[in-house]
Amino acid sequence: MAQPDRSNPGGDVDPPEHGGNLSYASRRHGEPASGWLDLSTGINPVPFPAPPVPPEALAHLPDRDALNALLAVARAAYGLPATAAIAAAPGSEAALRLLPAIAPPGTVAIVAPAYTSHADAWRAAGRIVLAANSIDEIPDNASIAVVGNPNNPDGRLYAPGQLVALATRLGERGGFLVVDEAFADTAPATSLMPVLDGKLPAVVLRSIGKFYGLAGLRLGFVAGIDTIVGRLASLLGDWPVSGPAIAVARAALADTDWQAATRERLKQDMDRLQNIVDRHGLNAIGGTDLFLLVEDGDAAALHRRLAERGIWTRIFAYQARWLRLGLPPDQGFGRLDRALAEILPG
Amino acid sequence: MAQPDRSNPGGDVDPPEHGGNLSYASRRHGEPASGWLDLSTGINPVPFPAPPVPPEALAHLPDRDALNALLAVARAAYGLPATAAIAAAPGSEAALRLLPAIAPPGTVAIVAPAYTSHADAWRAAGRIVLAANSIDEIPDNASIAVVGNPNNPDGRLYAPGQLVALATRLGERGGFLVVDEAFADTAPATSLMPVLDGKLPAVVLRSIGKFYGLAGLRLGFVAGIDTIVGRLASLLGDWPVSGPAIAVARAALADTDWQAATRERLKQDMDRLQNIVDRHGLNAIGGTDLFLLVEDGDAAALHRRLAERGIWTRIFAYQARWLRLGLPPDQGFGRLDRALAEILPG
Repeated sequence: MAQPDRSNPGGDVDPPEHGGNLSYASRRHGEPASGWLDLSTGINPVPFPAPPVPPEALAHLPDRDALNALLAVARAAYGLPATAAIAAAPGSEAALRLLPAIAPPGTVAIVAPAYTSHADAWRAAGRIVLAANSIDEIPDNASIAVVGNPNNPDGRLYAPGQLVALATRLGERGGFLVVDEAFADTAPATSLMPVLDGKLPAVVLRSIGKFYGLAGLRLGFVAGIDTIVGRLASLLGDWPVSGPAIAVARAALADTDWQAATRERLKQDMDRLQNIVDRHGLNAIGGTDLFLLVEDGDAAALHRRLAERGIWTRIFAYQARWLRLGLPPDQGFGRLDRALAEILPG
Repeated sequence: MAQPDRSNPGGDVDPPEHGGNLSYASRRHGEPASGWLDLSTGINPVPFPAPPVPPEALAHLPDRDALNALLAVARAAYGLPATAAIAAAPGSEAALRLLPAIAPPGTVAIVAPAYTSHADAWRAAGRIVLAANSIDEIPDNASIAVVGNPNNPDGRLYAPGQLVALATRLGERGGFLVVDEAFADTAPATSLMPVLDGKLPAVVLRSIGKFYGLAGLRLGFVAGIDTIVGRLASLLGDWPVSGPAIAVARAALADTDWQAATRERLKQDMDRLQNIVDRHGLNAIGGTDLFLLVEDGDAAALHRRLAERGIWTRIFAYQARWLRLGLPPDQGFGRLDRALAEILPG
């Protein structure tokens, strides 16, 4: 949970609840001589080649027509039908944290394991939050459910038909389904977007940060049922996202050639990462084309020994046997391979 | 109130609730041959000369240390004591719209006239909202009050001591004072920031959009009482503002030479605007160094006739006699002068 600054700018949460945060890594393990190889997130290390941000994008209030054009290109990229609503948010993180403020009352079930911000956000709003092991185990007393698809960090996938059935059941209880599709860009067939119609009681969250490698832009989308999406748009006001986000994401979401080539490259790079992990005897138990989840008897020690070699990975407060590896940039595979050879000889 | 896109990207609210939105102006009045002269906002037309946005600011997750450095430079620029909390938000508009979700229950008094988003936000959250004519007329049954200082659109000023007394009274009722200082950069002596201590039941909103001319960045700050500022920071999560916003605003807030020169230039430009308005017999009844409020028997006709000459101004649904003029860029003064000479001959 973020805290406001109170003249303690170095204040750390340990362990961090998210990937990234290399300044924390440096305080903890020292600044590596050759710089950090950051594998702690699921962010594409080869970002969309954004054109320079024009000065007007910084200076002018974002125009409503430009925002609508962004929403139209997002609609096309995600295959969202015209009957479903869509709104832009300053990051899918902000969107998921705001959902409790606009959702109908009700108990919340989160399919575990899950990205931790979901439970934080609902609990901070005073909701009862239950964990479910799968979408088939959502308790009858929950009217709101949250599921990642593909799920972070284990990569578990549900078929759209299963999620439609769940959303319908939750709607009958006065609630709705939240599907976090932050990592769906590499698995478009799994997306609920094409079956949304504005009435199905579901909202889908998408992120520009991961697949497009543009996490600094802070841009995400919320699509689905009219009421919730409309309330979220109202809550954020007339200028929900920045001029740079609109300018850059319009180009990225429209560039279907870059998207297709990137899906192919990420697949190849994930094969490469999987091969390295296999070769060193590590046990990969899940993932997507943007991250790989490794199970290890002492994941914390593996994390520390990699950090001592300048490689920053993600461990989890709720599961001591897990380590998540994001994709390195091209020149990073060899460094990871050599570090693992030192740490896990023969 | 913003609505989500539902395949009606041209949908307009008439009249618009905010300035800007030149695409609306063009649909309504046609695109001017020489482009719009946009006087419809209070945004400095000569923005802080931002260095180019580095690609990493778009790609990487904003680092916690970089955000803390931004908060530290904002604290210094605003004269905020170390005991008071401060948080960054993706625009002061987003911040004010989120306040109702984290505020204690209670009736809300808004000192009128006021920037309309305040009442919209509290009403959307189901609050009873009352209008007060001045801070001396806040009803006893209101525990939360909202005041602009300097106020938009009339420029009314309150002394910090008056606001401290009001905040203390509201705190005794379980509530707090919201001070919208979006236009305080040209009148720093009026700011409540230097007297905040983390305990005074007040939150102050600041904007990077207006004085710095960086409305596209979507960056604002909320400072004051620990509880509210802390809840707002939690609501927004670990990456509340974008990489470009952090990079550019750190430079702008630290550049005290630019700030001093800009205060002086805005003052001179406002004198110039006031002279033009006076010369054409218009009645300026208030303002700041970033906008001037004109009273006219038929402000709507004046607005329309200026729009027909490519000059976009702001009128108000709640007060038919008012027209607000922002500062033109240097080459725009003559155009405004000539247009007024045509519309108001002799």
